Amino acid sequence: MTPALERLVNAFSSLPNIGRKSATRLAYKIIEMSEDEVNSFADTIINAKNSVKLCAVCQGYCEDALCSICSNDSRMKDTIVVVEDNRALEAIEETHEYNGQYHVLHGIISPIDNIGPEQLKIKELLARLDDGVKEVIIATNPSVEGEATAMYLSRLIKPFGIKVSRLAYGLPVGATLEYADSVTLLKAIEGRTEV
Amino acid sequence: MTPALERLVNAFSSLPNIGRKSATRLAYKIIEMSEDEVNSFADTIINAKNSVKLCAVCQGYCEDALCSICSNDSRMKDTIVVVEDNRALEAIEETHEYNGQYHVLHGIISPIDNIGPEQLKIKELLARLDDGVKEVIIATNPSVEGEATAMYLSRLIKPFGIKVSRLAYGLPVGATLEYADSVTLLKAIEGRTEV
Repeated sequence: MTPALERLVNAFSSLPNIGRKSATRLAYKIIEMSEDEVNSFADTIINAKNSVKLCAVCQGYCEDALCSICSNDSRMKDTIVVVEDNRALEAIEETHEYNGQYHVLHGIISPIDNIGPEQLKIKELLARLDDGVKEVIIATNPSVEGEATAMYLSRLIKPFGIKVSRLAYGLPVGATLEYADSVTLLKAIEGRTEV
Repeated sequence: MTPALERLVNAFSSLPNIGRKSATRLAYKIIEMSEDEVNSFADTIINAKNSVKLCAVCQGYCEDALCSICSNDSRMKDTIVVVEDNRALEAIEETHEYNGQYHVLHGIISPIDNIGPEQLKIKELLARLDDGVKEVIIATNPSVEGEATAMYLSRLIKPFGIKVSRLAYGLPVGATLEYADSVTLLKAIEGRTEV
């Protein structure tokens, strides 16, 4: 493998979920593309980086001052769903059932990775908590760090007199009890609802 | 998702083995990188495309006129292994047992994909078949197209009075007979060797 190819394989390997074998395949694909295609591919990367900014309100990705959700007047202003990242925001949007606001933290409190509350968009969240906000739904991932971040946020938000909730734990739809892990099963029993 | 992000996801999706979910993850990773990192990533791509050329002799990838194998005088000149692409060449190099030359076809005869012999580096192979070459080992993949290409090449090369061989078919090392497909098993029986 030539040095320039080697550098390209290393660059691709540094991306998430790309192992050395996949990176090699991607690198060869680049070499096999036409020069125009490669230039346009590189332009698309640089262009995305340059045009995507954070929404001034929810801190989600956008290309204008406000994102399409924050600038949409038909969405409820009284509920904010707090997510770790834009991927989570889009997963919730894809349910097509939630019609409120979001706030993107851009990470999660994780002492192991040296990420404290000050590195997250928490003060931007607190700045939004005016009279109009009635509920903050914390939708961090169901991990230890997600749980700790939810606890931390709820302690900050409750003094504002705002309801703070957390996504429900339980069995995923379509799962079988037999294969559910015992922590999830316990949470499903604890969180049982009357029928 | 913003338009520039959408375009980046589409660009990543066009790469081999990258589905839409992986492409989205890669696109977000790009946005999360620093501007310097993104510029250097794009530069690495363009640089690889610009500096990698085809070796004048074997047609493998190289950055000078000749690749490191063709310009290596300690390698045997009398045997040429013909491969479909550079990935196959590197797989054989990784065995560290072959010390001859290579020739990269850059594809395989495939009427379905509209690829005929004239699109492959076949005339460059024939031009190399001088007195010094004693054997050409055809190492195309064990597919229908690989087989057809091997047959086609052998008919072209034999008139030069050069031995033409094909990689052996058989059981992969470590396999169990129980799980071998019947074509492979048949080939293994046909190609049995005396012990």
